Amino acid sequence: MIASAAPQLLVFDVFGTVVDWHGSIAREVRALRAEVDAEAFALAWRAGYQPAMQRVRSGELGWTLIDDLHRLILDQVLQQFRVTDFGEAEKRHLNKAWHRLDPWPDVVAGLTRLKTRHTICTLSNGNIALLTNMAKRAGLPWDCILSAEVFRAYKPDPAVYLGAAKVFDLPPEAVMMVAAHQNDLAAARSCGLQTAYIERPAEFGIKQRKDVSPDPANTRHARDFVDLAAQLGC
Amino acid sequence: MIASAAPQLLVFDVFGTVVDWHGSIAREVRALRAEVDAEAFALAWRAGYQPAMQRVRSGELGWTLIDDLHRLILDQVLQQFRVTDFGEAEKRHLNKAWHRLDPWPDVVAGLTRLKTRHTICTLSNGNIALLTNMAKRAGLPWDCILSAEVFRAYKPDPAVYLGAAKVFDLPPEAVMMVAAHQNDLAAARSCGLQTAYIERPAEFGIKQRKDVSPDPANTRHARDFVDLAAQLGC
Repeated sequence: MIASAAPQLLVFDVFGTVVDWHGSIAREVRALRAEVDAEAFALAWRAGYQPAMQRVRSGELGWTLIDDLHRLILDQVLQQFRVTDFGEAEKRHLNKAWHRLDPWPDVVAGLTRLKTRHTICTLSNGNIALLTNMAKRAGLPWDCILSAEVFRAYKPDPAVYLGAAKVFDLPPEAVMMVAAHQNDLAAARSCGLQTAYIERPAEFGIKQRKDVSPDPANTRHARDFVDLAAQLGC
Repeated sequence: MIASAAPQLLVFDVFGTVVDWHGSIAREVRALRAEVDAEAFALAWRAGYQPAMQRVRSGELGWTLIDDLHRLILDQVLQQFRVTDFGEAEKRHLNKAWHRLDPWPDVVAGLTRLKTRHTICTLSNGNIALLTNMAKRAGLPWDCILSAEVFRAYKPDPAVYLGAAKVFDLPPEAVMMVAAHQNDLAAARSCGLQTAYIERPAEFGIKQRKDVSPDPANTRHARDFVDLAAQLGC
Protein backbone atom coordinates (compact mmCIF):
# COMPACT_ATOMS: atom_id res chain seq x y z
CA MET A 1 0.00 0.00 0.00
CA ILE A 2 1.18 3.50 -0.82
CA ALA A 3 0.89 6.35 1.70
CA SER A 4 -1.17 9.17 0.17
CA ALA A 5 -3.02 12.30 1.27
CA ALA A 6 -6.74 11.75 1.86
CA PRO A 7 -8.66 11.91 -1.43
CA GLN A 8 -11.31 14.65 -1.76
CA LEU A 9 -13.35 12.86 -4.39
CA LEU A 10 -14.21 9.15 -4.47
CA VAL A 11 -15.37 7.82 -7.84
CA PHE A 12 -17.01 4.41 -8.01
CA ASP A 13 -17.27 1.71 -10.58
CA VAL A 14 -20.86 0.43 -10.39
CA PHE A 15 -21.56 -2.95 -12.09
CA GLY A 16 -20.12 -5.57 -9.73
CA THR A 17 -18.63 -3.03 -7.31
CA VAL A 18 -21.82 -1.32 -6.07
CA VAL A 19 -24.48 -3.69 -7.37
CA ASP A 20 -24.84 -7.44 -7.79
CA TRP A 21 -25.58 -7.66 -11.51
CA HIS A 22 -25.34 -11.46 -11.56
CA GLY A 23 -27.89 -12.14 -8.84
CA SER A 24 -30.23 -9.36 -9.97
CA ILE A 25 -30.29 -10.29 -13.67
CA ALA A 26 -30.68 -13.99 -12.86
CA ARG A 27 -33.63 -13.18 -10.59
CA GLU A 28 -35.42 -11.23 -13.33
CA VAL A 29 -34.77 -13.87 -15.99
CA ARG A 30 -35.99 -16.61 -13.65
CA ALA A 31 -39.19 -14.66 -12.95
CA LEU A 32 -39.90 -14.36 -16.69
CA ARG A 33 -39.01 -17.90 -17.87
CA ALA A 34 -38.57 -20.55 -15.17
CA GLU A 35 -37.24 -23.05 -17.73
CA VAL A 36 -34.20 -20.94 -18.73
CA ASP A 37 -30.87 -21.39 -16.90
CA ALA A 38 -31.03 -17.90 -15.42
CA GLU A 39 -27.51 -17.85 -13.99
CA ALA A 40 -25.97 -18.89 -17.28
CA PHE A 41 -28.15 -16.33 -19.07
CA ALA A 42 -26.86 -13.55 -16.77
CA LEU A 43 -23.24 -14.61 -17.38
CA ALA A 44 -23.75 -14.72 -21.15
CA TRP A 45 -25.36 -11.28 -21.21
CA ARG A 46 -22.52 -9.79 -19.19
CA ALA A 47 -19.91 -11.62 -21.32
CA GLY A 48 -21.11 -9.62 -24.31
CA TYR A 49 -20.43 -6.33 -22.53
CA GLN A 50 -16.69 -5.82 -23.09
CA PRO A 51 -16.78 -6.94 -26.77
CA ALA A 52 -19.72 -4.56 -27.39
CA MET A 53 -17.87 -1.62 -25.82
CA GLN A 54 -14.79 -2.59 -27.80
CA ARG A 55 -16.79 -2.04 -31.00
CA VAL A 56 -17.35 1.54 -29.80
CA ARG A 57 -13.76 2.04 -28.63
CA SER A 58 -12.41 0.80 -31.97
CA GLY A 59 -14.69 3.13 -33.92
CA GLU A 60 -16.60 0.27 -35.59
CA LEU A 61 -19.73 1.63 -33.85
CA GLY A 62 -20.29 5.35 -33.29
CA TRP A 63 -20.99 6.52 -29.73
CA THR A 64 -23.60 4.11 -28.35
CA LEU A 65 -25.13 4.10 -24.86
CA ILE A 66 -24.94 1.03 -22.64
CA ASP A 67 -28.75 0.70 -22.77
CA ASP A 68 -28.45 0.19 -26.53
CA LEU A 69 -25.43 -2.12 -26.25
CA HIS A 70 -27.29 -4.19 -23.65
CA ARG A 71 -30.15 -4.56 -26.12
CA LEU A 72 -27.86 -5.66 -28.97
CA ILE A 73 -26.39 -8.33 -26.70
CA LEU A 74 -29.79 -9.36 -25.32
CA ASP A 75 -31.08 -10.13 -28.80
CA GLN A 76 -28.10 -12.46 -29.35
CA VAL A 77 -28.40 -14.12 -25.93
CA LEU A 78 -32.12 -14.78 -26.42
CA GLN A 79 -31.24 -16.61 -29.67
CA GLN A 80 -28.39 -18.47 -27.97
CA PHE A 81 -30.76 -19.69 -25.22
CA ARG A 82 -33.45 -20.46 -27.84
CA VAL A 83 -35.97 -18.10 -26.25
CA THR A 84 -38.16 -17.19 -29.19
CA ASP A 85 -41.40 -16.07 -27.56
CA PHE A 86 -40.37 -12.66 -26.20
CA GLY A 87 -42.36 -9.74 -27.58
CA GLU A 88 -40.88 -6.27 -28.02
CA ALA A 89 -42.40 -4.96 -24.75
CA GLU A 90 -40.98 -7.87 -22.79
CA LYS A 91 -37.53 -7.39 -24.35
CA ARG A 92 -37.57 -3.70 -23.45
CA HIS A 93 -38.62 -4.50 -19.91
CA LEU A 94 -35.91 -7.11 -19.46
CA ASN A 95 -33.29 -4.79 -20.96
CA LYS A 96 -34.13 -2.25 -18.25
CA ALA A 97 -33.30 -4.89 -15.61
CA TRP A 98 -29.86 -3.22 -15.59
CA HIS A 99 -31.61 -0.16 -14.09
CA ARG A 100 -32.99 -2.35 -11.29
CA LEU A 101 -29.85 -4.03 -9.95
CA ASP A 102 -29.64 -4.56 -6.19
CA PRO A 103 -26.72 -3.17 -4.20
CA TRP A 104 -24.47 -5.43 -2.13
CA PRO A 105 -25.62 -5.42 1.53
CA ASP A 106 -22.85 -3.08 2.79
CA VAL A 107 -23.27 -0.41 0.11
CA VAL A 108 -25.86 2.03 1.47
CA ALA A 109 -24.33 2.04 4.96
CA GLY A 110 -20.80 2.39 3.56
CA LEU A 111 -21.64 5.19 1.11
CA THR A 112 -23.53 7.07 3.81
CA ARG A 113 -20.41 7.04 5.98
CA LEU A 114 -18.01 7.85 3.13
CA LYS A 115 -20.22 10.78 2.11
CA THR A 116 -19.67 12.53 5.43
CA ARG A 117 -16.04 13.33 4.56
CA HIS A 118 -15.78 12.89 0.79
CA THR A 119 -17.68 13.74 -2.37
CA ILE A 120 -18.98 10.41 -3.70
CA CYS A 121 -19.69 10.02 -7.37
CA THR A 122 -20.34 7.23 -9.86
CA LEU A 123 -17.77 6.74 -12.63
CA SER A 124 -19.39 3.98 -14.64
CA ASN A 125 -19.74 2.96 -18.24
CA GLY A 126 -23.48 2.82 -17.55
CA ASN A 127 -25.50 5.70 -18.97
CA ILE A 128 -26.80 8.57 -16.81
CA ALA A 129 -30.46 7.48 -16.83
CA LEU A 130 -29.53 3.91 -15.90
CA LEU A 131 -27.39 5.12 -12.97
CA THR A 132 -30.05 7.61 -11.84
CA ASN A 133 -32.88 5.08 -11.94
CA MET A 134 -30.72 2.54 -10.11
CA ALA A 135 -29.79 5.04 -7.39
CA LYS A 136 -33.40 6.14 -6.90
CA ARG A 137 -34.66 2.56 -6.57
CA ALA A 138 -31.84 1.38 -4.30
CA GLY A 139 -31.41 4.56 -2.24
CA LEU A 140 -27.78 5.12 -3.24
CA PRO A 141 -26.84 8.54 -1.82
CA TRP A 142 -24.53 9.79 -4.62
CA ASP A 143 -23.45 13.42 -4.55
CA CYS A 144 -23.17 13.33 -8.32
CA ILE A 145 -23.69 10.90 -11.19
CA LEU A 146 -20.82 10.87 -13.66
CA SER A 147 -20.84 8.45 -16.54
CA ALA A 148 -18.90 7.55 -19.65
CA GLU A 149 -21.84 9.30 -21.36
CA VAL A 150 -20.55 12.68 -20.11
CA PHE A 151 -17.11 12.08 -21.64
CA ARG A 152 -18.29 10.04 -24.64
CA ALA A 153 -15.56 7.50 -23.95
CA TYR A 154 -15.61 4.15 -22.18
CA LYS A 155 -13.31 3.08 -19.36
CA PRO A 156 -10.45 2.24 -19.44
CA ASP A 157 -10.03 5.26 -21.76
CA PRO A 158 -7.95 7.84 -19.79
CA ALA A 159 -10.48 10.52 -20.85
CA VAL A 160 -12.93 9.11 -18.29
CA TYR A 161 -10.61 9.14 -15.25
CA LEU A 162 -8.98 12.46 -16.13
CA GLY A 163 -12.38 13.89 -17.06
CA ALA A 164 -13.71 13.24 -13.56
CA ALA A 165 -10.74 15.05 -11.97
CA LYS A 166 -11.16 17.95 -14.39
CA VAL A 167 -14.90 18.32 -13.71
CA PHE A 168 -14.05 18.83 -10.03
CA ASP A 169 -10.97 20.96 -10.78
CA LEU A 170 -8.78 18.54 -8.82
CA PRO A 171 -5.35 17.05 -9.50
CA PRO A 172 -5.68 13.31 -10.27
CA GLU A 173 -4.00 12.35 -6.98
CA ALA A 174 -6.88 13.99 -5.05
CA VAL A 175 -9.28 11.49 -6.62
CA MET A 176 -9.66 7.83 -5.61
CA MET A 177 -11.14 5.24 -7.98
CA VAL A 178 -13.04 2.50 -6.11
CA ALA A 179 -13.65 -0.75 -8.00
CA ALA A 180 -13.85 -4.52 -7.73
CA HIS A 181 -11.79 -4.89 -10.92
CA GLN A 182 -8.00 -4.66 -11.02
CA ASN A 183 -7.92 -3.59 -14.68
CA ASP A 184 -10.15 -0.58 -13.98
CA LEU A 185 -7.88 0.38 -11.08
CA ALA A 186 -4.71 -0.11 -13.12
CA ALA A 187 -6.02 2.28 -15.78
CA ALA A 188 -7.01 4.84 -13.12
CA ARG A 189 -3.58 4.53 -11.50
CA SER A 190 -1.82 5.14 -14.78
CA CYS A 191 -3.72 8.47 -14.91
CA GLY A 192 -2.43 9.38 -11.44
CA LEU A 193 -5.54 8.55 -9.39
CA GLN A 194 -5.46 6.79 -6.04
CA THR A 195 -7.13 3.37 -6.10
CA ALA A 196 -9.17 1.20 -3.73
CA TYR A 197 -9.94 -2.44 -4.49
CA ILE A 198 -13.17 -3.90 -3.10
CA GLU A 199 -13.57 -7.65 -2.67
CA ARG A 200 -16.72 -8.95 -4.38
CA PRO A 201 -16.05 -12.71 -4.36
CA ALA A 202 -19.62 -13.55 -5.51
CA GLU A 203 -19.66 -11.12 -8.46
CA PHE A 204 -20.11 -14.01 -10.92
CA GLY A 205 -22.34 -16.04 -8.59
CA ILE A 206 -21.51 -18.30 -5.69
CA LYS A 207 -20.65 -21.23 -7.99
CA GLN A 208 -17.55 -19.53 -9.41
CA ARG A 209 -15.62 -17.67 -6.74
CA LYS A 210 -13.56 -14.77 -8.01
CA ASP A 211 -9.89 -14.15 -7.17
CA VAL A 212 -9.92 -11.20 -4.78
CA SER A 213 -6.28 -11.21 -3.75
CA PRO A 214 -4.67 -7.82 -3.07
CA ASP A 215 -2.46 -5.95 -5.52
CA PRO A 216 0.07 -3.91 -3.52
CA ALA A 217 -0.05 -1.20 -6.21
CA ASN A 218 -3.47 -0.10 -4.89
CA THR A 219 -3.72 2.62 -2.26
CA ARG A 220 -6.34 0.62 -0.34
CA HIS A 221 -7.70 -2.93 -0.29
CA ALA A 222 -11.06 -3.27 1.46
CA ARG A 223 -13.43 -6.13 2.17
CA ASP A 224 -16.42 -3.90 1.40
CA PHE A 225 -17.60 -0.25 1.56
CA VAL A 226 -17.99 -0.26 5.34
CA ASP A 227 -14.39 -1.47 5.66
CA LEU A 228 -13.26 1.27 3.22
CA ALA A 229 -15.11 3.89 5.30
CA ALA A 230 -13.32 2.67 8.43
CA GLN A 231 -9.93 2.75 6.64
CA LEU A 232 -10.57 6.33 5.49
CA GLY A 233 -11.58 7.43 9.00
CA CYS A 234 -15.26 8.00 8.20
CA MET B 1 -52.94 26.69 -17.64
CA ILE B 2 -52.79 23.73 -20.02
CA ALA B 3 -53.96 20.27 -19.01
CA SER B 4 -51.13 17.76 -19.41
CA ALA B 5 -50.19 14.26 -18.31
CA ALA B 6 -48.04 14.13 -15.17
CA PRO B 7 -44.37 14.70 -16.03
CA GLN B 8 -41.93 11.88 -15.21
CA LEU B 9 -38.87 14.10 -14.96
CA LEU B 10 -38.68 17.52 -13.32
CA VAL B 11 -35.67 19.63 -14.31
CA PHE B 12 -34.81 22.71 -12.27
CA ASP B 13 -33.17 26.00 -12.96
CA VAL B 14 -30.94 26.70 -9.96
CA PHE B 15 -29.68 30.31 -9.57
CA GLY B 16 -32.67 32.28 -8.26
CA THR B 17 -35.09 29.34 -8.48
CA VAL B 18 -33.50 26.97 -5.96
CA VAL B 19 -31.01 29.26 -4.24
CA ASP B 20 -30.94 32.90 -3.15
CA TRP B 21 -27.83 34.11 -4.99
CA HIS B 22 -28.45 37.75 -4.07
CA GLY B 23 -28.63 37.28 -0.32
CA SER B 24 -25.86 34.67 -0.24
CA ILE B 25 -23.35 36.64 -2.33
CA ALA B 26 -24.09 39.86 -0.45
CA ARG B 27 -23.51 38.04 2.85
CA GLU B 28 -20.08 36.78 1.74
CA VAL B 29 -19.01 40.15 0.33
CA ARG B 30 -20.11 41.90 3.53
CA ALA B 31 -18.12 39.45 5.63
CA LEU B 32 -14.97 40.18 3.61
CA ARG B 33 -15.21 43.99 3.26
CA ALA B 34 -17.74 45.77 5.49
CA GLU B 35 -17.21 49.06 3.64
CA VAL B 36 -18.36 47.73 0.24
CA ASP B 37 -22.05 48.04 -0.78
CA ALA B 38 -22.53 44.28 -0.72
CA GLU B 39 -26.01 44.23 -2.26
CA ALA B 40 -24.93 46.39 -5.18
CA PHE B 41 -21.82 44.21 -5.58
CA ALA B 42 -23.99 41.08 -5.80
CA LEU B 43 -26.24 42.70 -8.41
CA ALA B 44 -23.26 43.86 -10.48
CA TRP B 45 -21.66 40.42 -10.40
CA ARG B 46 -24.90 38.78 -11.52
CA ALA B 47 -25.47 41.45 -14.18
CA GLY B 48 -22.28 40.29 -15.89
CA TYR B 49 -23.60 36.73 -16.17
CA GLN B 50 -25.78 36.89 -19.30
CA PRO B 51 -23.28 39.01 -21.31
CA ALA B 52 -20.47 36.58 -20.37
CA MET B 53 -22.52 33.56 -21.50
CA GLN B 54 -23.43 35.45 -24.65
CA ARG B 55 -19.71 35.62 -25.51
CA VAL B 56 -19.71 31.80 -25.39
CA ARG B 57 -22.99 31.42 -27.28
CA SER B 58 -21.77 33.74 -30.03
CA GLY B 59 -18.51 31.83 -30.40
CA GLU B 60 -16.35 34.80 -29.31
CA LEU B 61 -15.20 32.62 -26.40
CA GLY B 62 -14.73 28.86 -26.72
CA TRP B 63 -16.57 26.61 -24.26
CA THR B 64 -16.00 28.17 -20.83
CA LEU B 65 -17.37 26.95 -17.49
CA ILE B 66 -19.43 29.23 -15.26
CA ASP B 67 -16.69 29.10 -12.58
CA ASP B 68 -14.35 30.73 -15.09
CA LEU B 69 -16.96 33.21 -16.35
CA HIS B 70 -17.72 34.18 -12.73
CA ARG B 71 -14.01 34.89 -12.24
CA LEU B 72 -13.77 37.07 -15.38
CA ILE B 73 -16.73 39.11 -14.13
CA LEU B 74 -15.44 39.25 -10.56
CA ASP B 75 -12.18 40.84 -11.70
CA GLN B 76 -14.19 43.57 -13.45
CA VAL B 77 -16.57 44.12 -10.52
CA LEU B 78 -13.70 44.42 -8.05
CA GLN B 79 -12.27 47.22 -10.22
CA GLN B 80 -15.70 48.83 -10.58
CA PHE B 81 -16.11 48.89 -6.77
CA ARG B 82 -12.46 50.03 -6.34
CA VAL B 83 -11.53 47.02 -4.26
CA THR B 84 -7.79 46.76 -4.92
CA ASP B 85 -6.50 44.81 -1.92
CA PHE B 86 -7.79 41.30 -2.76
CA GLY B 87 -5.04 38.69 -3.13
CA GLU B 88 -5.35 35.72 -5.47
CA ALA B 89 -6.39 33.34 -2.68
CA GLU B 90 -9.14 35.70 -1.53
CA LYS B 91 -10.42 36.13 -5.10
CA ARG B 92 -10.54 32.36 -5.58
CA HIS B 93 -12.37 31.95 -2.29
CA LEU B 94 -14.95 34.63 -3.13
CA ASN B 95 -15.45 33.20 -6.63
CA LYS B 96 -16.43 29.90 -5.01
CA ALA B 97 -19.19 31.71 -3.09
CA TRP B 98 -21.41 30.56 -5.98
CA HIS B 99 -20.85 26.99 -4.69
CA ARG B 100 -22.12 28.08 -1.24
CA LEU B 101 -25.47 29.68 -2.07
CA ASP B 102 -28.30 29.08 0.39
CA PRO B 103 -31.58 27.55 -0.77
CA TRP B 104 -34.89 29.36 -0.30
CA PRO B 105 -36.64 28.12 2.88
CA ASP B 106 -39.19 25.88 1.07
CA VAL B 107 -36.68 24.09 -1.17
CA VAL B 108 -35.49 21.06 0.79
CA ALA B 109 -39.01 20.20 2.00
CA GLY B 110 -40.48 20.73 -1.47
CA LEU B 111 -37.83 18.70 -3.33
CA THR B 112 -38.14 15.88 -0.81
CA ARG B 113 -41.86 15.67 -1.56
CA LEU B 114 -41.45 16.04 -5.34
CA LYS B 115 -38.82 13.29 -5.33
CA THR B 116 -41.32 10.72 -4.06
CA ARG B 117 -43.15 10.68 -7.40
CA HIS B 118 -40.76 12.24 -9.91
CA THR B 119 -37.11 12.12 -10.88
CA ILE B 120 -35.69 15.51 -9.85
CA CYS B 121 -32.69 16.86 -11.64
CA THR B 122 -30.83 20.17 -11.98
CA LEU B 123 -30.76 21.78 -15.43
CA SER B 124 -28.56 24.77 -14.80
CA ASN B 125 -25.92 26.75 -16.61
CA GLY B 126 -23.79 26.22 -13.49
CA ASN B 127 -21.01 23.66 -13.86
CA ILE B 128 -21.24 20.14 -12.40
CA ALA B 129 -18.78 20.72 -9.53
CA LEU B 130 -20.55 23.94 -8.51
CA LEU B 131 -23.95 22.21 -8.46
CA THR B 132 -22.56 19.17 -6.61
CA ASN B 133 -20.80 21.24 -3.94
CA MET B 134 -23.92 23.39 -3.50
CA ALA B 135 -26.17 20.32 -3.12
CA LYS B 136 -23.83 18.70 -0.61
CA ARG B 137 -23.62 21.83 1.55
CA ALA B 138 -27.35 22.62 1.40
CA GLY B 139 -28.69 19.06 1.51
CA LEU B 140 -30.48 19.29 -1.86
CA PRO B 141 -31.71 15.75 -2.60
CA TRP B 142 -31.22 15.68 -6.40
CA ASP B 143 -31.58 12.35 -8.17
CA CYS B 144 -29.15 13.58 -10.82
CA ILE B 145 -27.08 16.66 -11.59
CA LEU B 146 -27.38 17.78 -15.20
CA SER B 147 -25.66 20.92 -16.35
CA ALA B 148 -24.96 22.93 -19.47
CA GLU B 149 -21.48 21.41 -19.04
CA VAL B 150 -22.83 18.01 -20.12
CA PHE B 151 -24.27 19.45 -23.34
CA ARG B 152 -21.59 22.12 -23.88
CA ALA B 153 -24.32 24.67 -24.57
CA TYR B 154 -25.93 27.32 -22.40
CA LYS B 155 -29.66 27.79 -21.86
CA PRO B 156 -31.73 28.97 -23.66
CA ASP B 157 -30.03 26.84 -26.35
CA PRO B 158 -32.54 24.07 -27.28
CA ALA B 159 -29.69 21.54 -26.99
CA VAL B 160 -29.92 21.80 -23.21
CA TYR B 161 -33.67 21.17 -22.86
CA LEU B 162 -33.79 18.49 -25.54
CA GLY B 163 -30.57 16.98 -24.19
CA ALA B 164 -32.16 16.39 -20.78
CA ALA B 165 -35.13 14.59 -22.36
CA LYS B 166 -32.79 12.50 -24.52
CA VAL B 167 -30.59 11.47 -21.56
CA PHE B 168 -33.69 10.01 -19.90
CA ASP B 169 -35.08 8.60 -23.18
CA LEU B 170 -38.29 10.59 -22.72
CA PRO B 171 -40.41 12.63 -25.11
CA PRO B 172 -40.12 16.37 -24.28
CA GLU B 173 -43.71 16.51 -23.01
CA ALA B 174 -42.84 14.03 -20.24
CA VAL B 175 -40.35 16.56 -18.85
CA MET B 176 -41.26 19.68 -16.83
CA MET B 177 -38.87 22.65 -16.59
CA VAL B 178 -39.17 24.45 -13.25
CA ALA B 179 -37.83 28.01 -13.07
CA ALA B 180 -38.35 31.48 -11.65
CA HIS B 181 -37.62 33.04 -15.06
CA GLN B 182 -40.20 33.32 -17.85
CA ASN B 183 -37.55 33.40 -20.61
CA ASP B 184 -36.09 30.06 -19.47
CA LEU B 185 -39.60 28.57 -19.45
CA ALA B 186 -40.48 30.03 -22.85
CA ALA B 187 -37.40 28.39 -24.38
CA ALA B 188 -38.23 25.07 -22.71
CA ARG B 189 -41.81 25.30 -23.94
CA SER B 190 -40.71 25.92 -27.51
CA CYS B 191 -38.84 22.57 -27.25
CA GLY B 192 -42.07 20.84 -26.16
CA LEU B 193 -41.42 20.63 -22.40
CA GLN B 194 -44.05 21.32 -19.76
CA THR B 195 -43.24 24.37 -17.61
CA ALA B 196 -43.74 25.47 -14.00
CA TYR B 197 -43.11 29.04 -12.88
CA ILE B 198 -41.99 29.61 -9.28
CA GLU B 199 -42.47 32.99 -7.62
CA ARG B 200 -39.23 34.33 -6.17
CA PRO B 201 -40.16 37.97 -5.49
CA ALA B 202 -36.97 38.66 -3.51
CA GLU B 203 -34.57 37.22 -6.11
CA PHE B 204 -32.91 40.63 -6.56
CA GLY B 205 -33.21 41.59 -2.89
CA ILE B 206 -36.08 43.00 -0.92
CA LYS B 207 -35.46 46.55 -2.16
CA GLN B 208 -36.43 45.75 -5.75
CA ARG B 209 -39.42 43.43 -5.90
CA LYS B 210 -39.64 41.31 -9.01
CA ASP B 211 -42.73 40.93 -11.21
CA VAL B 212 -44.00 37.43 -10.49
CA SER B 213 -47.30 37.57 -12.37
CA PRO B 214 -48.48 34.38 -14.05
CA ASP B 215 -48.09 33.61 -17.74
CA PRO B 216 -51.03 31.41 -18.82
CA ALA B 217 -48.72 29.62 -21.28
CA ASN B 218 -47.10 27.78 -18.37
CA THR B 219 -48.42 24.38 -17.29
CA ARG B 220 -48.15 25.39 -13.60
CA HIS B 221 -47.69 28.56 -11.57
CA ALA B 222 -46.59 27.95 -7.97
CA ARG B 223 -45.76 30.14 -5.01
CA ASP B 224 -42.84 27.88 -4.07
CA PHE B 225 -41.66 24.23 -4.23
CA VAL B 226 -44.04 23.06 -1.50
CA ASP B 227 -46.94 24.56 -3.45
CA LEU B 228 -45.70 22.84 -6.63
CA ALA B 229 -45.51 19.52 -4.77
CA ALA B 230 -49.11 19.96 -3.62
CA GLN B 231 -50.25 20.84 -7.16
CA LEU B 232 -48.54 17.71 -8.54
CA GLY B 233 -50.14 15.51 -5.87
CA CYS B 234 -46.92 14.74 -3.98
